[in-house]
Amino acid sequence: MAHKSACLVIGAGDDTGAAIGRAFAREGMTACLVRRPRHADALEALAASIRDDGHEAVAMPTDARDEEAMIALVERIEADVASIDVAVFNIGANVRFPITETTARVYHKVWEMACFSGFLMGREVAKKMLTRGHGTIIFTGATASTRGREHLAAFAGAKAALRALAQSMARELGPKNIHVAHTIIDGAIDSNFIRENVPNVDALREEDAVLNPDHIAQNYVMLHKQPRTAWTHELDLRPWKETW
Amino acid sequence: MAHKSACLVIGAGDDTGAAIGRAFAREGMTACLVRRPRHADALEALAASIRDDGHEAVAMPTDARDEEAMIALVERIEADVASIDVAVFNIGANVRFPITETTARVYHKVWEMACFSGFLMGREVAKKMLTRGHGTIIFTGATASTRGREHLAAFAGAKAALRALAQSMARELGPKNIHVAHTIIDGAIDSNFIRENVPNVDALREEDAVLNPDHIAQNYVMLHKQPRTAWTHELDLRPWKETW
Amino acid sequence: MAHKSACLVIGAGDDTGAAIGRAFAREGMTACLVRRPRHADALEALAASIRDDGHEAVAMPTDARDEEAMIALVERIEADVASIDVAVFNIGANVRFPITETTARVYHKVWEMACFSGFLMGREVAKKMLTRGHGTIIFTGATASTRGREHLAAFAGAKAALRALAQSMARELGPKNIHVAHTIIDGAIDSNFIRENVPNVDALREEDAVLNPDHIAQNYVMLHKQPRTAWTHELDLRPWKETW
Amino acid sequence: MAHKSACLVIGAGDDTGAAIGRAFAREGMTACLVRRPRHADALEALAASIRDDGHEAVAMPTDARDEEAMIALVERIEADVASIDVAVFNIGANVRFPITETTARVYHKVWEMACFSGFLMGREVAKKMLTRGHGTIIFTGATASTRGREHLAAFAGAKAALRALAQSMARELGPKNIHVAHTIIDGAIDSNFIRENVPNVDALREEDAVLNPDHIAQNYVMLHKQPRTAWTHELDLRPWKETW
Repeated sequence: MAHKSACLVIGAGDDTGAAIGRAFAREGMTACLVRRPRHADALEALAASIRDDGHEAVAMPTDARDEEAMIALVERIEADVASIDVAVFNIGANVRFPITETTARVYHKVWEMACFSGFLMGREVAKKMLTRGHGTIIFTGATASTRGREHLAAFAGAKAALRALAQSMARELGPKNIHVAHTIIDGAIDSNFIRENVPNVDALREEDAVLNPDHIAQNYVMLHKQPRTAWTHELDLRPWKETW
Repeated sequence: MAHKSACLVIGAGDDTGAAIGRAFAREGMTACLVRRPRHADALEALAASIRDDGHEAVAMPTDARDEEAMIALVERIEADVASIDVAVFNIGANVRFPITETTARVYHKVWEMACFSGFLMGREVAKKMLTRGHGTIIFTGATASTRGREHLAAFAGAKAALRALAQSMARELGPKNIHVAHTIIDGAIDSNFIRENVPNVDALREEDAVLNPDHIAQNYVMLHKQPRTAWTHELDLRPWKETW
Repeated sequence: MAHKSACLVIGAGDDTGAAIGRAFAREGMTACLVRRPRHADALEALAASIRDDGHEAVAMPTDARDEEAMIALVERIEADVASIDVAVFNIGANVRFPITETTARVYHKVWEMACFSGFLMGREVAKKMLTRGHGTIIFTGATASTRGREHLAAFAGAKAALRALAQSMARELGPKNIHVAHTIIDGAIDSNFIRENVPNVDALREEDAVLNPDHIAQNYVMLHKQPRTAWTHELDLRPWKETW
Repeated sequence: MAHKSACLVIGAGDDTGAAIGRAFAREGMTACLVRRPRHADALEALAASIRDDGHEAVAMPTDARDEEAMIALVERIEADVASIDVAVFNIGANVRFPITETTARVYHKVWEMACFSGFLMGREVAKKMLTRGHGTIIFTGATASTRGREHLAAFAGAKAALRALAQSMARELGPKNIHVAHTIIDGAIDSNFIRENVPNVDALREEDAVLNPDHIAQNYVMLHKQPRTAWTHELDLRPWKETW
């Protein structure tokens, strides 16, 4: 089939990743959805729901921290699905510990999940995009990407390193026609997590005080569609009522 | 007439301001175009060309540094044209002088044009928008908005102050449902100025290496249309080949 | 008299400016102290107290916003006192107003006091320092120098513009052996103002929770003495207990 | 022996680390010098040269990436040498690779050396300092700490994460009387490396155009001595001629 195109979403587990996959599928791309193997059922359910809407999606459970697995994933998509024209890295790892209670295991793991996996994805898809001379790579960031806070050494460190990766890749690959962008998502997202943990979530949603995953996803599609005379590198998104 | 809506563009003289006015007019708003009185003819020509395309536009020559004139301008639009739902401040003043050759007159004038006028616009339209409970205000910035450089004390100072204004207003007016955004336009714009001063401009344009004013304008319309669960405060725009 | 050297302090009215003048006088420089003419008596008392300690100081009441007056001030110091080897700009103007209640007069005045005066000082002393090939210029900043906040449009704008001036001058004059630095003073200063307005000031002072003006001044002297292989451009100073 | 005090320097291998150890030893502290075991001879030679000058120093070869080794190192110093009142993390890892040629091994290793080791040092000394209620922790940064650049994804990522660690620790531990600071060293350092690789290094040194390690070290001592009413969190240091 001619002109098929794939959108890879690493971290399609939470509401934001799911919405991003859905949004690019609506644009006619095949959403290649990735979560850890232990969430394979939920991932397949998401892919099925996108296909039920008449779009294309594939569940591809993968450990994004595993270099060999990531190389194989990208090869498989390019061989069996379509060229990866968009890749989105959307894994978070928002943990909080006092510095003296942050174990080396936690510090390392948060970096592996929230940064190293992003490096592996970025490098592998860049190789393919460079051969074709175009593509879009988006990394999801947070306020912690721009500054450290008490109890956030592990998370802020991983996010700051991911932002440095996005800046390095944007400066290196921009002049090769690959659009690399980083987002700053600032505020609570209307997700399973807050629906279960925040008591007044309905009131918040009603007044648009929480980030709607579909609205985040619209902005990712917008970034992909920007004409190359005017590319955005960093996009902040926060609800109107958010203090910052 | 019901549902009429106005977009005020201060600094509709260069190619960017003109493109912004045109873009919002295409969205069904009446473009209220402002430049200094001495450019009244060019301003009227721009308004006429928008009307020729079947859209609505009014030329309103005004000295944006004059408080009384700005108050009167906003009153006149609200009374005679429509509610101002979007206001864009787009006046630049990119001059370069060694610090010891920067006259007090130049330093003051650059601030008046590129910052004080923006304050007057922002304050006056905010008053109206607050009574209605919605609106979008966009300030055009540059790389100099974020850092000073040799020979740029006057320009960088004015732009940094304008950015501080945008941040202050965004934090104050966001929770009142007014979306205040600031852009960082980084790179040469395909304008009369570069068409006359840069020898290889056609080659640059052909490879999308200069910012296309229409593409900048699309991004301003996008900012206005963002759902309020996910508002952007600062948007950088640069050509794919730009080094930064 | 050989080897005499002057330190100009614009804004020697508050506790910080006074401490800075005192600290450089202790280093053997003649403190040239400047406040507005209406504070001439207080200024003379400060100069006298420094002389009583065996150091040199001159009260020079001047309106720092007046270009002619500032040119004359610098000429007079260089002719009658000594070469200006250090110049410190220390005028604040911390006012707070909602954006819609910020008058054009206030917005302009805050910029004139907290930024334009700094430009005049910087330019005039730079001229003298460039002929001698050395000198130190320090601008006092605040947290608002780096970001706008609600109700702070005027103050944050002036401080952001002053910081852009410091960056522009540092980049331009550094390679000419003039050290230009900017400070970020973050927190309450142990001053007449807080002694009169903060109820528990003694308790705060006792636990070092307020900035001690003498400690700020020590850091300014340190900046002046930095060997030129390792110059600092921006120095933040805050009490140990301050949240930021 | 009463009032003994130790300064731990991780990365005492290059000229900067050596100068820092020497400077704190001159202040009467015992310099506890750390490099990887394979540099044990050079490390011992450095310690001996400090002792020859009449000061105290101990060579303690350790792999700073090894959690158990770092815990044991801090325990041993506290038991056998003195309380650690100052700890400096000074390991760099400045490598450059295009993103597609950056191996996972390199990316991981650079982070381990330049960031994870810093986390281990920071956490272990913080535990001791918290029990005593005072201490100084300094992390050495670079321009890459604040932004990514082409070919610098690994280095900029590790340095950005280290800076986020410093900010997190400063905000958390400052109010507990532990001074955490981060430096931005911007420019070539007068080191073995540039003495061997830069042809005109004598000319550069003669005009103070390269950072003198002793001058860097003076600033670290200054940070340690700052009274706690006015602490600096981030200090940039660059030669007067450096463009930035």
